[in-house]
Amino acid sequence: MTLRIAEIFGPTIQGEGVLIGQPTVFIRAGGCDYRCSWCDSLHAVDSQYRHDWTPMQPDAVFARVRDLSGGQPLTVSISGGNPAIQDFGPVIAQGNAQGYRFACETQGSIPRDWFGDLSTLVLSPKPPSSGEVVDWDKFAACVAAGPAQTIMKIVIFDEADLAWARAAHARHPHLPLYLQPGNPVTDPEIAVAPQALADRLLWLVDATVGRGWLTPHILPQLHVLIWGNRRGV
Amino acid sequence: MTLRIAEIFGPTIQGEGVLIGQPTVFIRAGGCDYRCSWCDSLHAVDSQYRHDWTPMQPDAVFARVRDLSGGQPLTVSISGGNPAIQDFGPVIAQGNAQGYRFACETQGSIPRDWFGDLSTLVLSPKPPSSGEVVDWDKFAACVAAGPAQTIMKIVIFDEADLAWARAAHARHPHLPLYLQPGNPVTDPEIAVAPQALADRLLWLVDATVGRGWLTPHILPQLHVLIWGNRRGV
Repeated sequence: MTLRIAEIFGPTIQGEGVLIGQPTVFIRAGGCDYRCSWCDSLHAVDSQYRHDWTPMQPDAVFARVRDLSGGQPLTVSISGGNPAIQDFGPVIAQGNAQGYRFACETQGSIPRDWFGDLSTLVLSPKPPSSGEVVDWDKFAACVAAGPAQTIMKIVIFDEADLAWARAAHARHPHLPLYLQPGNPVTDPEIAVAPQALADRLLWLVDATVGRGWLTPHILPQLHVLIWGNRRGV
Repeated sequence: MTLRIAEIFGPTIQGEGVLIGQPTVFIRAGGCDYRCSWCDSLHAVDSQYRHDWTPMQPDAVFARVRDLSGGQPLTVSISGGNPAIQDFGPVIAQGNAQGYRFACETQGSIPRDWFGDLSTLVLSPKPPSSGEVVDWDKFAACVAAGPAQTIMKIVIFDEADLAWARAAHARHPHLPLYLQPGNPVTDPEIAVAPQALADRLLWLVDATVGRGWLTPHILPQLHVLIWGNRRGV
């Protein structure tokens, strides 16, 4: 069974969400069932880039992860695109057997049996600014298939996204909730000003905690702070 | 029993360490047994500021926390100065009974029975750049008194601090380790450039994960990114 892989890189730190700051190797899967208006990973989404994706067997994927980590077990984050399009079960099984831990980041549109073999499942339903519409039945099936550490992460661009996030979390109030400000600059050639990132984070803190909504964690994207939109870091 | 309180503020987000991003009310205790060269909280440390510290009974401390949080249980971080100089047991007991969770941040120089009533104990042994010397017997007693979630957090200014952190963690390898770049700008009147913070974070990622040391989480101080060195946020 062949996997389409956009990139495998690391170790570096996880830049966002519940595992923020943790040394991680990233597997970015090619292909997505969504096309978010502000997607920051089009090179792993748009089929015009499909010739840049490498067909790899699960053994080869894990061998690359092991090489990058120097054989030291660490957290492996499977993202995309939407990695749930493909079957990462064999990669995860092989890694778990050698002490690696796996996180997967997906919008929650396609439930998978192998979600249960993850250490962490990050479900990122897409708010109105994305232009996508969430299928909440599919999302609930993803939650049901996930491991003990299943969290909800939502990117927030504006007040409409924020109101939507509150209602979305009310559907699954037992999931830990992480909000992060959206990044309107997605061109890897354009630098992101750290001050602009700080400003967006301040806005989101004021608009949540500052108004008495104490449920979500509020975190920026550290990789954008450090590297802007550069790939492979 | 009267507590010396430098400030109580929030809710805002926790800016650093294992609880990063979490809505939090902060209790900053007045007084410290250390005098780190780069201390960013001298207003809660140096006895020249002691007349700015408010004498408060435990009931009054928790009442202020409850007012600030609008009665919504959340995480309360007790920092300083070194809060372990004083007896925060009654504040914690009262808060726990009402569903609040407590974290305490201390260098680990004074073990306390009430550490066991915390949800999170953050022990921050001070590296050589601080000018202080750690008493490792006292530190071990703090670890022994702590709750299940006891973590080690170390501020890193330079290569000497980094080498020291590695040896320090080898004494307590079961503790999750969090490293954060030091902030050389401590004057609340001087702005901190977000780019400088990004640069220091990049240096620390390169110097740890980039060299194959995959144990520590690497995190910046988000409150410095957002607010510089301003107090009360």
